[in-house]
Amino acid sequence: MDDRIRDHAAVLVDWSARVEEGDRVTMAVGEGAHPLAVAVAELLGERGATLHASYASAEVQRAYLLASDEFEEPTHERRLIEATDVYLSLRGGRNTSAMADVSAETHRAASRAGSELREARMDTDWVSTVHPTRSLAQQAGMSVEAYREFVYDAILRDWESLAEEMGRMKELLDEGSEVRLVSGEETDLRMSVEDRVAVNSAASVAYDSHNLPSGEVFTAPHDLEGTVTFDVPMTIRGKRVRDVRLTFEDDEVVDYAAAENESVIGDVLDTDEGARRAGELGIGMNRGIDRFTDNILFDEKMGDTVHLALGRAYESNFPPGTEDERNDSAVHVDLITDVSEDSRLEVDGEVVQRDGRFRWEDGFEG
Amino acid sequence: MDDRIRDHAAVLVDWSARVEEGDRVTMAVGEGAHPLAVAVAELLGERGATLHASYASAEVQRAYLLASDEFEEPTHERRLIEATDVYLSLRGGRNTSAMADVSAETHRAASRAGSELREARMDTDWVSTVHPTRSLAQQAGMSVEAYREFVYDAILRDWESLAEEMGRMKELLDEGSEVRLVSGEETDLRMSVEDRVAVNSAASVAYDSHNLPSGEVFTAPHDLEGTVTFDVPMTIRGKRVRDVRLTFEDDEVVDYAAAENESVIGDVLDTDEGARRAGELGIGMNRGIDRFTDNILFDEKMGDTVHLALGRAYESNFPPGTEDERNDSAVHVDLITDVSEDSRLEVDGEVVQRDGRFRWEDGFEG
Repeated sequence: MDDRIRDHAAVLVDWSARVEEGDRVTMAVGEGAHPLAVAVAELLGERGATLHASYASAEVQRAYLLASDEFEEPTHERRLIEATDVYLSLRGGRNTSAMADVSAETHRAASRAGSELREARMDTDWVSTVHPTRSLAQQAGMSVEAYREFVYDAILRDWESLAEEMGRMKELLDEGSEVRLVSGEETDLRMSVEDRVAVNSAASVAYDSHNLPSGEVFTAPHDLEGTVTFDVPMTIRGKRVRDVRLTFEDDEVVDYAAAENESVIGDVLDTDEGARRAGELGIGMNRGIDRFTDNILFDEKMGDTVHLALGRAYESNFPPGTEDERNDSAVHVDLITDVSEDSRLEVDGEVVQRDGRFRWEDGFEG
Repeated sequence: MDDRIRDHAAVLVDWSARVEEGDRVTMAVGEGAHPLAVAVAELLGERGATLHASYASAEVQRAYLLASDEFEEPTHERRLIEATDVYLSLRGGRNTSAMADVSAETHRAASRAGSELREARMDTDWVSTVHPTRSLAQQAGMSVEAYREFVYDAILRDWESLAEEMGRMKELLDEGSEVRLVSGEETDLRMSVEDRVAVNSAASVAYDSHNLPSGEVFTAPHDLEGTVTFDVPMTIRGKRVRDVRLTFEDDEVVDYAAAENESVIGDVLDTDEGARRAGELGIGMNRGIDRFTDNILFDEKMGDTVHLALGRAYESNFPPGTEDERNDSAVHVDLITDVSEDSRLEVDGEVVQRDGRFRWEDGFEG
């Protein structure tokens, strides 16, 4: 076995999920994630946890969804999850388009039936990670060998020290009121982060962070004013979009444009009232991620990027008493901008990041 | 998808497990059983059942077992199974020796921790079947194409009519008292089937039969007297045995011999007191199975064979009030004899099978 698979399993079990003796672990294994499942099982045995392995196959799921007339909650699976302490999702299939012929309507119906199950899963110490399969390499436009390098560079970080560094960014956002993002000629956006709590997403349940890799600090901004251009290409609803430009007035998008598939953005904005407002401001700080692979799990964590999501905000950003202000749109669509050049991020008028360098880093020019 | 995979799924779901609308189904998927899992999922969707797929990987299991110091019951999995109506085990791995380096002691310790879980599984409508993988083909000494033919010939039977035919055999055993098996020069064995109920093992929970394929009628004989030779080679405890010969006096084995690995038989007999007595007499009636493949799931069901097991008897053969007479040895080792030539099976002095032909078949010569 590739040593990196064992190292990945160790980060997942010990840093991310904090598995302890006696923990009841459910491990959901994607079709292509077998090698990682073996490595994780070995560690769970060593830690004295008990294990149930479930089979998270997109092809099995597709066959079931397409054949069903209506959906009921799988209550037996809910019993399992309710008795589960740690839920590990090992993603990585064999075809990222395996569900392409399942309609949105069917997905919605199945999703409605599974809402209690999903909530039960969120109540566990859950972590979602990804095994570098050929299918994901293909989606990223990379050979599988190069893709493995890419994934393990993102995952096998010194998380302790990254968490510490991200803690500084969180502190700045928690203590500050106004954030301003300026980039090139196209972006000058101001927003408030007052009355919000930033999350230090350090890829560990101890930080209320549930994805491995992670490496971002995010909050829920409000009162946005200005214009922002997202120069990182992305696939949204199966369509490639490029150079999305949004203009905010009074916290709402009042104008939009895109160099490709502009109508997708229009559709997103028309979903509901919350879709015209932002739900997340995220600052990517994982320098192990060195390129865009059209996979949001990685792209939004990349160092030297900032992202904004239209729609739903995360509960974790709202301190007690502010929950009512949360954007609860049905959508959450991330858009990313590269801030490595000709850019600055300010908090209350002070530059905290310029051209990708943070103020505590060598080479920072305030 | 090979049509036979869909046909296999249909036999499993409808004939064997009798899945109905609203049933909560847990499907355990072996590493090599993915195509069958997809076909079964489709049918479960059509029937309106809910589905949880678990991952029955020998390699995951091995890693967990070898790394563990001690074993606890996975109570979360037991919650799942307790809420499960139908449990489908889709066997078929990628290496039949995947667990070869797990010690018997470790297996026993894990098995002890899982005893309540196992009982819960037995309380469901469970069915175990097998997908024809390359690894199983290799074990059978066959190409995968030929092995698929073999497996589907065994599984895709007219089960309704086979169940009816086996019903006749069950009736003969239920109404009779003494069974006598005579074959060649080497076998002349008498036994009582008094106070026992024969099971018509027709590969369906409706017949209290939990393996697909099946196709045998079995009972729990007692008061064995005489000699029997088992001319079908088998692998027992990892060792090839051939031409096992047992002599019974007063219901106990008093002499044994084998042409190969005789000591394995000695070890089995020394396990406990029940290991020296028989626990099962089975009459193979599945003519779709046309060769021995060193896989007991198939071999013992083959038409024109009779098998006897040393050790543990099945509860289903004991009518109320006779449970105390059940052989509860720790072992259950099947041994098979070919009765296609120069053989006869008698019940109370009447020949019911001669040279492989049953009395109700064309070509039977009383």
